[in-house]
Amino acid sequence: QSLLTDFKKTLDFSPATCSLAQLASNSTQWVDKQVTLHGYVGARRVANKTLVFAELHDMSLTSIIQIVSSVTKNVDSISRPHDLLRDLEQHTPVVIQGTVKGRQAPKAGQSSKDESKPMIIAGVEIKLDNITPLNAFPKDLIVTSDTVFSPEKRHLQIKHDKSIRDALIFRSKVSRFVRDHLADNHGFEEFETPLLFKSTPEGAREFLVPTRNPGFAYALPQSPQQYKQILMASGISRYMQIARCFRDEDLRADRQPEFTQVDLEMAFASDEDVMRTVEDTVKALWEKMLPGAALSEAFPRMTYAEAMSRYGSDKPDVRLGSEIRRVEYMLPVDLVSKIGPLSDPIVEVMKVAISDDPATTRKFVSTFMDSPEAASFISNPEGQPGISVCDSRKPLQGLQTFGFEAAEQLEETLDLQDGDLVVLQARKNAAFAGGSTPIGNLRLALHRFACKQALLPPHDPQMFEFLWVTDFPLFTPTSIEPTEPGQGGTTGLTSTHHPFTAPKTAADVDLLLEAPLEAKGAHYDLVLNGVELGGGSRRIHNSLMQEFIFRHVLGMSDERVGNFRHLLEVLRAGCPPHAGMALGFDRLVAVMLGRESVRDVIAFPKSGRGEDLMVGAPTRMSDGQMRTYGLQMAAKV
Amino acid sequence: QSLLTDFKKTLDFSPATCSLAQLASNSTQWVDKQVTLHGYVGARRVANKTLVFAELHDMSLTSIIQIVSSVTKNVDSISRPHDLLRDLEQHTPVVIQGTVKGRQAPKAGQSSKDESKPMIIAGVEIKLDNITPLNAFPKDLIVTSDTVFSPEKRHLQIKHDKSIRDALIFRSKVSRFVRDHLADNHGFEEFETPLLFKSTPEGAREFLVPTRNPGFAYALPQSPQQYKQILMASGISRYMQIARCFRDEDLRADRQPEFTQVDLEMAFASDEDVMRTVEDTVKALWEKMLPGAALSEAFPRMTYAEAMSRYGSDKPDVRLGSEIRRVEYMLPVDLVSKIGPLSDPIVEVMKVAISDDPATTRKFVSTFMDSPEAASFISNPEGQPGISVCDSRKPLQGLQTFGFEAAEQLEETLDLQDGDLVVLQARKNAAFAGGSTPIGNLRLALHRFACKQALLPPHDPQMFEFLWVTDFPLFTPTSIEPTEPGQGGTTGLTSTHHPFTAPKTAADVDLLLEAPLEAKGAHYDLVLNGVELGGGSRRIHNSLMQEFIFRHVLGMSDERVGNFRHLLEVLRAGCPPHAGMALGFDRLVAVMLGRESVRDVIAFPKSGRGEDLMVGAPTRMSDGQMRTYGLQMAAKV
Repeated sequence: QSLLTDFKKTLDFSPATCSLAQLASNSTQWVDKQVTLHGYVGARRVANKTLVFAELHDMSLTSIIQIVSSVTKNVDSISRPHDLLRDLEQHTPVVIQGTVKGRQAPKAGQSSKDESKPMIIAGVEIKLDNITPLNAFPKDLIVTSDTVFSPEKRHLQIKHDKSIRDALIFRSKVSRFVRDHLADNHGFEEFETPLLFKSTPEGAREFLVPTRNPGFAYALPQSPQQYKQILMASGISRYMQIARCFRDEDLRADRQPEFTQVDLEMAFASDEDVMRTVEDTVKALWEKMLPGAALSEAFPRMTYAEAMSRYGSDKPDVRLGSEIRRVEYMLPVDLVSKIGPLSDPIVEVMKVAISDDPATTRKFVSTFMDSPEAASFISNPEGQPGISVCDSRKPLQGLQTFGFEAAEQLEETLDLQDGDLVVLQARKNAAFAGGSTPIGNLRLALHRFACKQALLPPHDPQMFEFLWVTDFPLFTPTSIEPTEPGQGGTTGLTSTHHPFTAPKTAADVDLLLEAPLEAKGAHYDLVLNGVELGGGSRRIHNSLMQEFIFRHVLGMSDERVGNFRHLLEVLRAGCPPHAGMALGFDRLVAVMLGRESVRDVIAFPKSGRGEDLMVGAPTRMSDGQMRTYGLQMAAKV
Repeated sequence: QSLLTDFKKTLDFSPATCSLAQLASNSTQWVDKQVTLHGYVGARRVANKTLVFAELHDMSLTSIIQIVSSVTKNVDSISRPHDLLRDLEQHTPVVIQGTVKGRQAPKAGQSSKDESKPMIIAGVEIKLDNITPLNAFPKDLIVTSDTVFSPEKRHLQIKHDKSIRDALIFRSKVSRFVRDHLADNHGFEEFETPLLFKSTPEGAREFLVPTRNPGFAYALPQSPQQYKQILMASGISRYMQIARCFRDEDLRADRQPEFTQVDLEMAFASDEDVMRTVEDTVKALWEKMLPGAALSEAFPRMTYAEAMSRYGSDKPDVRLGSEIRRVEYMLPVDLVSKIGPLSDPIVEVMKVAISDDPATTRKFVSTFMDSPEAASFISNPEGQPGISVCDSRKPLQGLQTFGFEAAEQLEETLDLQDGDLVVLQARKNAAFAGGSTPIGNLRLALHRFACKQALLPPHDPQMFEFLWVTDFPLFTPTSIEPTEPGQGGTTGLTSTHHPFTAPKTAADVDLLLEAPLEAKGAHYDLVLNGVELGGGSRRIHNSLMQEFIFRHVLGMSDERVGNFRHLLEVLRAGCPPHAGMALGFDRLVAVMLGRESVRDVIAFPKSGRGEDLMVGAPTRMSDGQMRTYGLQMAAKV
């Protein structure tokens, strides 16, 4: 069979005698040497019947060298290498044998240092002696420089988009740096913890892994949290792991069902120790991998309450400006009552400096309000936003809504200029809960929309605004953020982060009994440019205290508490105080590279529906598989 | 509540001003300084009412410093720190405040460099000013230096056995070294591949992960094999990953349902390239982590056929000697026919030098034959072993069974001495298949038994005999090693390793059609001291060839081949030749440290039944969980 014959020819191919990188680094020393090169056929130029130029891309598609084949006119006999070089499909993997020759430097521009393109070796070229194809490249695969491949063709996407390969290599270097820095500068070692764990009511829904013992299953961990706490109780003082984690959640907002986190935990440590360690590591990482960026000396800190009131978000993007202020005290009573259905609301205002020209800003407002992005703000049950545009040619600068006194006060407080947009928004007079307020979301939406319309400049990719957010409420009313399946408590409270977070101070411990919603947790989030890079906390290291939280504050049943029996046992055995943190690694890399989506920094990301479209996962379970695990499809109800 | 009060006291503890390591490294400079230390209370000695000595173990339990508390006799008032130091339970985590004082060097021996014990700081001690307990250590937990903890108490086992902690830290350093070496010396980067993969008939049974789309499931990968091949087709030239893998197999012989492997793959590479890279990495690893050990310049190589015939194993432990030889040609015909039920068998013989004294060896033989270890050899359907003991005081040196001529020949060939044990074993006259022969297993069993009986010396822990085993048969009759669930072919052939292994030579390609069982694969195993550290192969990089193997050699159905459609597509897109390898990381670390079981180098290993006895995994699925995934228990048949 011819297929066997074809395959046999590719079994014994000559090893490469050098890489293209070696040829590039010291090209003159190679001149007139015989070399064997591996790579892929690139673009060709057939000068005439006797002269062909072709690019050879090296095996990692980072460098290009020119291959030249010429045959003398009066040779009638067929030159197979010459014909192959001319006729092989582009992208065919080949072995090239030839002689290194000096080359006139190509025209300027071709060898430019554009890192998004492969480097073209300028000093030498290869005179072709022989070429051996190692596989076929099918004619039905069309690849041009601007082909957009579907997720099913992830291999072609990676192969033909250098930016994806570069991102994956960058990712690898980041993970090595973080590991080494934590080890060499802070005494951490990496400990691998099991992925076949068990289901515990920690918060998110876990994937289950059925066993052949019918009815029994492992669960994939949503984080190594419990195992790392066990390590703290086991005499391990500094734990780190770049760990795979799993959540069977409805995938929104660029989340993946499996993701990677930089996970760490420190014994005998407080929140401050962890924040110092992480801050040092992050700064060192930026210095190493993004040397151009300037970071602030010490990352600023902000409490949750401050972040929510100034930016309407627990992960504020402070680059945007547009701070939010409370103004209900300065507004006419009738305005406050007209502003929405709430009685005695809090009213907040912010300025967005869209343009210098009121007409432009007014056009922007109406375009925005007509766009789908505005829909959720218009239907906000707490009232829709009131939007004015500052315009000195209008009465009260266009701020008539506010009445004379408030308009004047606002103009001064917000330092209003022509074309500034002023947004007014009411909300319920209650303590903050959850991750954002409507005006906070509107702040982001307006900036995003204005960037898209080129009214605001795009963000400087070298600008990194880090921020620690602290003093989160330890508990959130279950009604605000219903987690699935949640911790299963019965008191209407859910741990804001997870049930292992310690109360921040002695006063917060006292609040557990009287006003648990007012208790602050020893939790801290690291925020960068409006993205939550990760969070951590001091943990409850005392078994009685942990059980008290489970049972009396969250109201878990005996059975639920029993799921955590191992943790309570471990804390009981003289566990030292400990604190830790987890950084979302996919997101960290994406933000470093200025990528919108974590999918750009994951080799094989899942789709929005959790599918790997390239390999076709998940698949239907066979009857045999179901039988093996003692399962069958649930009867339709 | 008092529990809240107790907990509050541990919320604000003083940070440590230095570590015990810092105190040890330059102890004189610390004298008379005030310090705050963290750690655990160790052994106490109450000299008298006014003088207490206590050990303080540092937070990683690697160093110990002496704490001294003395109160003056005529002080009647209570000294709380003094009382606490005397009365706190051992193992209590504490903060110690005190003054560094010079100390007489303790008696010799105490500060010895026994790495299995914590280091005792000799030059200084701490005069106690204050002590704060940070948690309680319960009186019902009994911990002595020789307590053996059950797997349920893994935290206590790790905490109180320094050798486990040291092994875990060693493991972390090995993984860093391997990653860095492959990156810095061989150009590899680490690429993370998905763990939520799909079920493919690669060989072992996969764990399934049901999704909320009823009837659909992911599968956990048995290795990153397919994804790394996809990367090879995606322009990634050097891939590595320290990867978690999963197999839902019946757990025998120290296997874990989840395990870690050092996985690598190289584009445009042959078997030789991979073996060279791995050999270099392994040598560098040993040099770094086990500097005392001497490794051979180049790892020896042996074909599968040679390993099976000389050692009866495809992972021979060459340290043992006792080579196996075929002897049927020299034996009397009637002996051959008596030796077992087979007609025309192959008969093999080996010598084990148990002792110099025939009586001792005879006693050993009868003890062994009566032990459970011998049962499988006695019931071997190919005939039980014939065991003789060389004894110069007996006729024919005790080798009467062999007849005069053969006895004399054997004596010379095997260089027999008094007390040597001679084993004769028949086997079917057929090509080798599978991992070992009965005489090969008997060779190991006899050596193990003789070591246990102290008749043979234990292995030198610094002796590492590496070996490459090559030229495995590409296919194995399905009847020999029935895999579960197997590749589902219909021709009675199973890929010896996996269906992606390339035939070794052009001649082996030709054999695919006529005599596939004779075809050799381009597979190589790295063996160390009789342990298979890992294996790899050149892969089939040609789509048509891969489909030919699936369909025509293995006889897979359309549906089964369809499961690999993604791989065939990827190979089709101009995939370059590639080869790779995977090293079992748990086993690698265990062998480096001379540990019998991989459980000694895994923080939280699973039991022989696949359970995590500490956390209690797996657990019974709740009705709600089953409902979420559209499943129910299969009806009893």
